[in-house]
Formats: sequence, structure tokens, C-alpha cells
Amino acid sequence: MPRYKLTIEYDGTGYAGWQRQKNLMSIQGALEEAFFKFTKETVTLYASGRTDAGVHARGQVAHVDLQETYQPFQVRNAVNYYLDRHSIRIIEVENVDGSFHARFSSVERRYLYKILNRPASSPLDRYRVWHVYRPLTVELMHEAAQYLIGYHDFSTFRASECQSLSPMKTVDQLDVVRHGDYIEIFARSRSFLHHQVRNMVGTLKLVGEGKWSLEDFRSAFEARDRRRGGVTAPPQGLYFISAHYQKNFDVDLLPSTKTVDKNVEEL
Amino acid sequence: MPRYKLTIEYDGTGYAGWQRQKNLMSIQGALEEAFFKFTKETVTLYASGRTDAGVHARGQVAHVDLQETYQPFQVRNAVNYYLDRHSIRIIEVENVDGSFHARFSSVERRYLYKILNRPASSPLDRYRVWHVYRPLTVELMHEAAQYLIGYHDFSTFRASECQSLSPMKTVDQLDVVRHGDYIEIFARSRSFLHHQVRNMVGTLKLVGEGKWSLEDFRSAFEARDRRRGGVTAPPQGLYFISAHYQKNFDVDLLPSTKTVDKNVEEL
Repeated sequence: MPRYKLTIEYDGTGYAGWQRQKNLMSIQGALEEAFFKFTKETVTLYASGRTDAGVHARGQVAHVDLQETYQPFQVRNAVNYYLDRHSIRIIEVENVDGSFHARFSSVERRYLYKILNRPASSPLDRYRVWHVYRPLTVELMHEAAQYLIGYHDFSTFRASECQSLSPMKTVDQLDVVRHGDYIEIFARSRSFLHHQVRNMVGTLKLVGEGKWSLEDFRSAFEARDRRRGGVTAPPQGLYFISAHYQKNFDVDLLPSTKTVDKNVEEL
Repeated sequence: MPRYKLTIEYDGTGYAGWQRQKNLMSIQGALEEAFFKFTKETVTLYASGRTDAGVHARGQVAHVDLQETYQPFQVRNAVNYYLDRHSIRIIEVENVDGSFHARFSSVERRYLYKILNRPASSPLDRYRVWHVYRPLTVELMHEAAQYLIGYHDFSTFRASECQSLSPMKTVDQLDVVRHGDYIEIFARSRSFLHHQVRNMVGTLKLVGEGKWSLEDFRSAFEARDRRRGGVTAPPQGLYFISAHYQKNFDVDLLPSTKTVDKNVEEL
């Protein structure tokens, strides 16, 4: 059966997250339904990262097997047509061979977290950012974030419901940058634990507010205890940006720290 | 009466535009209603640029006179509270003296026009961009745009209903830049004619598609005839970015071409 690699954008607002669920509208469910309308086949999609309710994607990657061989643009246009009023669109389709697996072949995931940091909320970015009223010191947040770079035990930032076998992960990049009233946190890793990005962001915010010192942050991280971490940042600021595979991997951004880290994506 | 300068963000989707209209929801009407709820005064707002239906603003500037003297943050917070479900927020309030006029004192307006240039539409940028399916050659669009820089007769890009006394305007900057699948057109002038930015963008698109040569573009511009111009680009890609005044004017971006151009803003 021909396999297709799908790059997908969605507005996660109002969806129960990526994963198919009974009686709840999910991204996976909406896509599988659109594929059914197109091919009359019951298919299963496999995603690089199973995002939570309210989390967005600019470049989620999934794969699907279909009976027939189509041109990539046919799959994209037909499925987008059947997605209709869903806030989900397939951006790109590629023919891949059967060894490609969106989840297990992925060697890197990139996430972006957006904070709006000013007194007034934003009508144009409603459901698109975490609105934090009080001024945050971005330089301190960035400095704290650098403690997390490398291969570590991330238990402090791991959701209790995380199904990963190990809390060990390698964070290759975690940059905190201000653009005017907006703060962007860019995270890059082979894979993340469940809620890891949102828990890291929620804890970095405490440093930005001045409630925590850099030392408080470091000791919470080293405690390897979720109860020592800060709040989980809300989902609407989080974007799954891209998943990378050996073939299309951007060599300029190859992780400097390589580890045997085969845990699946649980974010 | 104390005068207040207001910087305003709005999502123009679903509004009849800036200007107050009977039986239609306008940005001005919603703001004046919120001011009434706050002060029990019937006030009139004056805007730097009266945007059309569906056009957005990141930094619209308006002024208003109130009976009482308030701290800027009090005005911002109270009016935003009463704006409630409206997709309009006051970002900043400043106390200004009675000589300040949001429309007549403005020495520069900046607009941004966003095009999404790829086959699939964008769920995250719905109502936020002009979706153009076919590939556009941005370099040619930028080159054509440079013909418009300076003091010219802009009749080719002027709406028939434009109330400006003269079609003469000075465009100080018109840059067309690609960021991946997105194209941004940045326009800067003391003031614009009605629909001028959207008409310039709609005509530049013909060049980007290859339907028009640079020579076609130039001769249409020189014809000074709206019937020779291209379509009016749709409103949802247009953003009023900022208005500038002598006091806060960014000297690095001072227009190189200065003209006596006192026509009011009609865009």
C-alpha cells in the first residue's frame, strides 16, 4: 500500500487534541473522516507529536497508507475539500516508502510558545497566545532556560499522566526572545515528555516575573519532582512547528548533544 | 477638557469599518459606546485612518476629550472592560494637550498587507491574510512597487468614492518581502487615498503572477485612470500598523521625499 507523508496546519481551539476520542472532536478524527469521504477507506493516521487540546500546529507531520496511488496534490486538495469547515488543512503531501514512520522515524521536533506580555489582551491573537499582564524579564528567562540544555532527567517538567518509560530527554535548544510585546520560546529536541514544553514555560515565567531566582529554578529542576515545578502554561500559546527526518534534516541545526533517546513523543 | 491619545488594536472581521454607521456595528461605535458606559458622556473619537470593513489594526490611533482627568491606565482598563466581547482593545493611553489631533497632526501612517501564497489555505490565519494559490514572484512585485515611491498622481489606485481633494500623494516606502509562504507588503506615507494600499496590492499581484510585465504596471500607473489598475485586494489582509506624530516620530525612518501634502486620511 502506498504511504503518504502529510504536513498539517491546524487551529487547535475547540478540538480535544490530536488523538481520536469517542464523542469528542479531535484533529485525528476529523482528518480520518475526511480521508474516508475521499477514499471510502477507514484509515489510521500516525502523528509525529500528539498535541493536547487547544494546542496549534504549523507543521504537524503524520503518515497514512491508502489503497490507491495518487499524486500528492490530489490527496492534499481532496482531503482539504472534505475537511470543509474544520480549522485543519493539509499543507503538503509527499510519497514515502513503507519504512517512513511519522512518529518513530522523527529525529527532531520543534515547538514554539508565544506569550503576549502587556496589560491589554490582543483581539488579533485571541486563542493564539498566553496573555501575561505583568512585565517579564526575558533575559533572566533565557538564562534559566540554558540550564535545561542537554541530556537530563526532566521529571520536574513531566505530566503525571506521561506514559514515557523514562524521564530522560535531551533538549537541544530553548531560546527565549522578545519581539516588542511578544515573547517567543523556541524548543528543539528529538522528543519531549508529556506537557514538557508547557511545564518548562510555566516555570520560566516565575523567573521572568521575579518570583523565582535563577537558583530557585535550578534547584527545582534538579529536584526531579513535578511538585517543585511551576504551573503548566495554557495550551493556546503552543505551536507544533515541525518534525524532522534524516532525509530532510537541516544539518546546520544538528543537535550537538546526541543521545540514545528512543522514547516516543508524548507531548 | 482633558484630551487622551488612544492606541487601538482590532480584528476588523465582522465590523463595518472604523466609521460610526446607523444600524451597523463599527469600531468607532463600539468604542464610543464603551466610553459612554465608563463616563456616562457621549463622546466622539477621531481616528488617524478610517479603515474599511474587515481591515485590521495593530496600532490605530484616535483621540477623545473627556470631562474628567484620569490616569492613562484607568481609561485603558475601564474601556477595555466595557468593550467586553468586542474584538477591540485599547493598548495604550496617553495624556495629550488640546493641540493634538489624531487625524490632522499625523505626519505618517504605516500599513502592512499580508498575502498567503501557497495552495492550501491557513486555519491559523483565516480572516488574517489574502490567500493567493498561484506562486507569485516577489522580486518583480518589489521592483514594480518602486515605481510608486515619491510624489505622484495616484488616480490609478484611487477608489471612485474617494473624497480627497487631490490624487497627489507621496509614498515613502513600499517593500514587498517574502517569508516562506507569506508575502508582506509594507507601505509608508503621510497619508493614503481611499483604497490606495489595497489597489496597489491588487495590481502588484498581477505582476507577481506574470500576467502583467513591469512595463504594463508602469503604463497603468502613468495613465492615472482607476480603470487601468488591477483589482482591489480584499480587506482581511490589511493592517493599520501605526500613526506617527512629530513628538514620537522615528527619525531613522523620516521620509526622504517631503511634500506639501495636507490631504486627510481617506483609506
